Amino acid sequence: MKQIQISLSLLLLLLPPLTLSTTTPTLINIWPKPLNLTFPALPKSTLLSPTFQIHSPNHPHLLTSSKRYTHLLLSEHHHPIIPPSINLSSTSPPLQSLTITVHNLLTPLTHAVDESYTLTVSSPSAHLTSHTPWGAIRGLETFSQLVWGYPPRIPIGVRVSDRPIFPHRGVLLDTSRNYYPVADILRTIKAMGENKLNVFHWHITDSHSFPIVLPSVPALSTKGSYGEAMRYSPEDVKRIVDFAASYAIRVVPEIDMPGHTGSWAEAYPEIVTCANMFWTGPKGTAWADRLASEPGTGQLNPLHPKTYEVVRDVIHDVASLFPEKFFHAGGDEVVPGCWKTDPMVRSFVSKGGTMDELLEMFVNSTRPYIVSLNRTAVYWEDVLLDATVKVNRSTLPPETTILQTWNNGPKNTKSTTSAGYRTIVSSADFYYLDCGHGGWVGNDSQYDRQTGDGGNGGSWCAPFKTWQRVYDYDITYGLTEEEAKLVLGGEVALWSEQADPTVLDARIWPRASAMAEALWSGNRDSSGKKRYADATDRLNEWRYRMIGRGVGAEPIQPLWCVTHPGMCNASQ
Amino acid sequence: MKQIQISLSLLLLLLPPLTLSTTTPTLINIWPKPLNLTFPALPKSTLLSPTFQIHSPNHPHLLTSSKRYTHLLLSEHHHPIIPPSINLSSTSPPLQSLTITVHNLLTPLTHAVDESYTLTVSSPSAHLTSHTPWGAIRGLETFSQLVWGYPPRIPIGVRVSDRPIFPHRGVLLDTSRNYYPVADILRTIKAMGENKLNVFHWHITDSHSFPIVLPSVPALSTKGSYGEAMRYSPEDVKRIVDFAASYAIRVVPEIDMPGHTGSWAEAYPEIVTCANMFWTGPKGTAWADRLASEPGTGQLNPLHPKTYEVVRDVIHDVASLFPEKFFHAGGDEVVPGCWKTDPMVRSFVSKGGTMDELLEMFVNSTRPYIVSLNRTAVYWEDVLLDATVKVNRSTLPPETTILQTWNNGPKNTKSTTSAGYRTIVSSADFYYLDCGHGGWVGNDSQYDRQTGDGGNGGSWCAPFKTWQRVYDYDITYGLTEEEAKLVLGGEVALWSEQADPTVLDARIWPRASAMAEALWSGNRDSSGKKRYADATDRLNEWRYRMIGRGVGAEPIQPLWCVTHPGMCNASQ
Repeated sequence: MKQIQISLSLLLLLLPPLTLSTTTPTLINIWPKPLNLTFPALPKSTLLSPTFQIHSPNHPHLLTSSKRYTHLLLSEHHHPIIPPSINLSSTSPPLQSLTITVHNLLTPLTHAVDESYTLTVSSPSAHLTSHTPWGAIRGLETFSQLVWGYPPRIPIGVRVSDRPIFPHRGVLLDTSRNYYPVADILRTIKAMGENKLNVFHWHITDSHSFPIVLPSVPALSTKGSYGEAMRYSPEDVKRIVDFAASYAIRVVPEIDMPGHTGSWAEAYPEIVTCANMFWTGPKGTAWADRLASEPGTGQLNPLHPKTYEVVRDVIHDVASLFPEKFFHAGGDEVVPGCWKTDPMVRSFVSKGGTMDELLEMFVNSTRPYIVSLNRTAVYWEDVLLDATVKVNRSTLPPETTILQTWNNGPKNTKSTTSAGYRTIVSSADFYYLDCGHGGWVGNDSQYDRQTGDGGNGGSWCAPFKTWQRVYDYDITYGLTEEEAKLVLGGEVALWSEQADPTVLDARIWPRASAMAEALWSGNRDSSGKKRYADATDRLNEWRYRMIGRGVGAEPIQPLWCVTHPGMCNASQ
Repeated sequence: MKQIQISLSLLLLLLPPLTLSTTTPTLINIWPKPLNLTFPALPKSTLLSPTFQIHSPNHPHLLTSSKRYTHLLLSEHHHPIIPPSINLSSTSPPLQSLTITVHNLLTPLTHAVDESYTLTVSSPSAHLTSHTPWGAIRGLETFSQLVWGYPPRIPIGVRVSDRPIFPHRGVLLDTSRNYYPVADILRTIKAMGENKLNVFHWHITDSHSFPIVLPSVPALSTKGSYGEAMRYSPEDVKRIVDFAASYAIRVVPEIDMPGHTGSWAEAYPEIVTCANMFWTGPKGTAWADRLASEPGTGQLNPLHPKTYEVVRDVIHDVASLFPEKFFHAGGDEVVPGCWKTDPMVRSFVSKGGTMDELLEMFVNSTRPYIVSLNRTAVYWEDVLLDATVKVNRSTLPPETTILQTWNNGPKNTKSTTSAGYRTIVSSADFYYLDCGHGGWVGNDSQYDRQTGDGGNGGSWCAPFKTWQRVYDYDITYGLTEEEAKLVLGGEVALWSEQADPTVLDARIWPRASAMAEALWSGNRDSSGKKRYADATDRLNEWRYRMIGRGVGAEPIQPLWCVTHPGMCNASQ
């Protein structure tokens, strides 16, 4: 993408001067919009000194971040499409430095860590103060977005006091259905940091491939990955985790089990039921008896002792590779049909055993080990809410369990929080970035229609979730105050049935930016009114700035709309 | 995109050997599938000699093409994901050359030109025969797709006899709403040639920007483009036209008028009505009285004499820049409300004049000049079928008029052909590649819903048109034999409200490939059954080959499905 992005951003440098159709003076654009940002009555700007320096406390990630931002500040030369109407001060000397003060340098990067910061820009120096290094990193991003043009300028007299509404703001990427080179993951994490997102939910494995190399069970990846060049080595993981930390981003690993484990069968066929079988089952099989929810079959066998040896090794290795205290263990879309292809399961059932008991057996035999490693287990809502196979609530102590919702929008979030579980919201109707591109299974006759518009287009979660849909979603909708307190935040998700490096940036950006602001400072203005109208113009600007920073975010409007704010609105 | 594509294709070189789940031997994949391709009973392959040469007749574009393919054949090293089960012959010497014979070297590149060719590969030499240089260029592409691996191999004993079903197979690109650098257009044209598409419909101008530099009226682009770096100079146009010809692709220019001309007002405000006004009109305006169908207002004033001076210069310059004999003059979405903002129009109406008369006036004052330049005028269906503003049939002589349909699927194609007009099909319900990404106008409250799946997502032509939908469309559906004869072919269209260089490749490919095969050799097998099932596996292979050739086509399935043909089907 790089090539194209650079050409595009270079072109924008050459945009003609604008005659604005808006009357209010345009100030500098920060995305996500800070909670509190104040300009002086008559804002003026000063130049950034060519010898500008960031004075950072001695903290490895903050030093890395400061060095990175120093370089960005002096090299970005961003030209806003709507130039800020902030004159250059004739009297203020250039800004010489930004001094960072952090109260608790030793605070580790964990869930709910304090990300607040305050920033004041007054020439000749600016000051950034925070409780933690992670808050300082957020403040550095804000500072970078205050700077524009060449030579670089910055408004003086600006004061920012900022912190997020929700502690968990993430992007899920599925690297099993299709593989993403490490460079693509790093670029995604960088863009996340620039949008103040803080959790990279890495859906590492699934039925299609097992790309992560685990030292105790190397065969899982040597046999289960798409090939030698499509694996993540321990060094790759370390690089990704460290890089993410320098953007104050946690990397939450997900090993999806017991369902979605077909790829495990390449190395350990004995522990996987129904692997490599046709997903709907033999001709004439009822949907209820299908072997998987989508092509790519296979579920770990809860009755096979070897299953737990392998799973224990997997959990152990993943926990050692990822310092993060959340461990996502999947648990979604377990189907009875797959287990029932196994003789042991059939005899278990013939003795009165149930599917729920099998799932409970699996959870009870794996969850305690996760907890013993000082991890909080995260599961998809299915383990509690699935219509067919679920576990008893007593199997999932709320103290050490977090649930992630994806079906039925606010309804399921209500179900998990009212049951007392901390919840991460990924409602497919709002946050699934892969939706709306039609079905991907082959041999599908539904598209052979010569009239009509094609109904919903064949995507199970159609339609495409627009940035507006993402932005307007209130993830605590319909909850009591107590229930709302249990909502940790949200995650947009890119499942990779129809995605790989060719579409990565455009599928995620700028839609993830829309969630980033909604979860950071909200989707309403001070009067409580939804601010999607004003967000349109700001997101346009931010999209072009992201392009200049090397992220291939898709356009949300013709450039004419960007240069004529308000003229492309639905109504006046 | 380059960077990503290359990394992706390199990764695929390292895919593990496959154990196939299909029983039939896999042969080499050609997209679009040739009309007739026969392999010997026991196919064998031979190596391509390192000194392999193409002997081409002396024709400028064919020589360029031969040189290009010689380089591709020896450098592509494509490794099919499903390796062809064709053994290397122990006895056949390497292939030394391909000799091209063309019967009529002087045949110009025009509509309905003979694109047929026959190809025989027998060691030590292959032969390609065609009636025209353009057919030979199609044959060279087929030859290139017969070659795979490193060192490069080719099946021997293969015979191909091939020609297209429809003479007009195009891609429309809108370069007004957002700008595309010349390099992106050239890459798109190259990919079109590799898919045997033959018409690049260049929707050059619209209300948002006027990017083409016209020597007689330079102000249109100096004032109406997005800026100096976002214009197409006469040299750029010549480069694009010549490059397209070397792929046997015609470039049909479209200057949309009298509607969609807001950008003209930057240079000539006097000839454009309602330019730069809010598109829905003053608060409370009825939809019927809106000023435009979407943001970006402006229509040429048929009553202003100056209008025809400018239009004449535009037509003259475009006709001199483009040798192509089709001249697309737009004619779509003319709305009464815009014209009625003009005093001259209001007095015309007060004297009993109608909107239809205004449009007829415009067509009668411009079409004859187009025809006088030895061009066939192409218009959007609206000029004949629009509910509000249209012209009398007598205004549009079928001999010199072609209509392009986009509404109501087969219904409007029936209307235009039954009226006796040659027709190009671009039904939005099947061929609009921009659909299904939601609405793009700002300040739209429809997305602020906390429940439900979001209905159709806000895109007027939702849902997203999947490759299957494109592939299965029969563009002569419901027509009599006589009417069907008037269907020249079809065009997929990428309108750029939500598209620019960041998403160009993925929006167009591989969906344009689906139309390319349907219009070249059809969407049915020899038994008359729709062949979308078999097309899935072939299109997967072709998509990865396109990636290797530098086109960022989007994935249609997880890689696992590609390596396990049939396993991701909807049914067995």
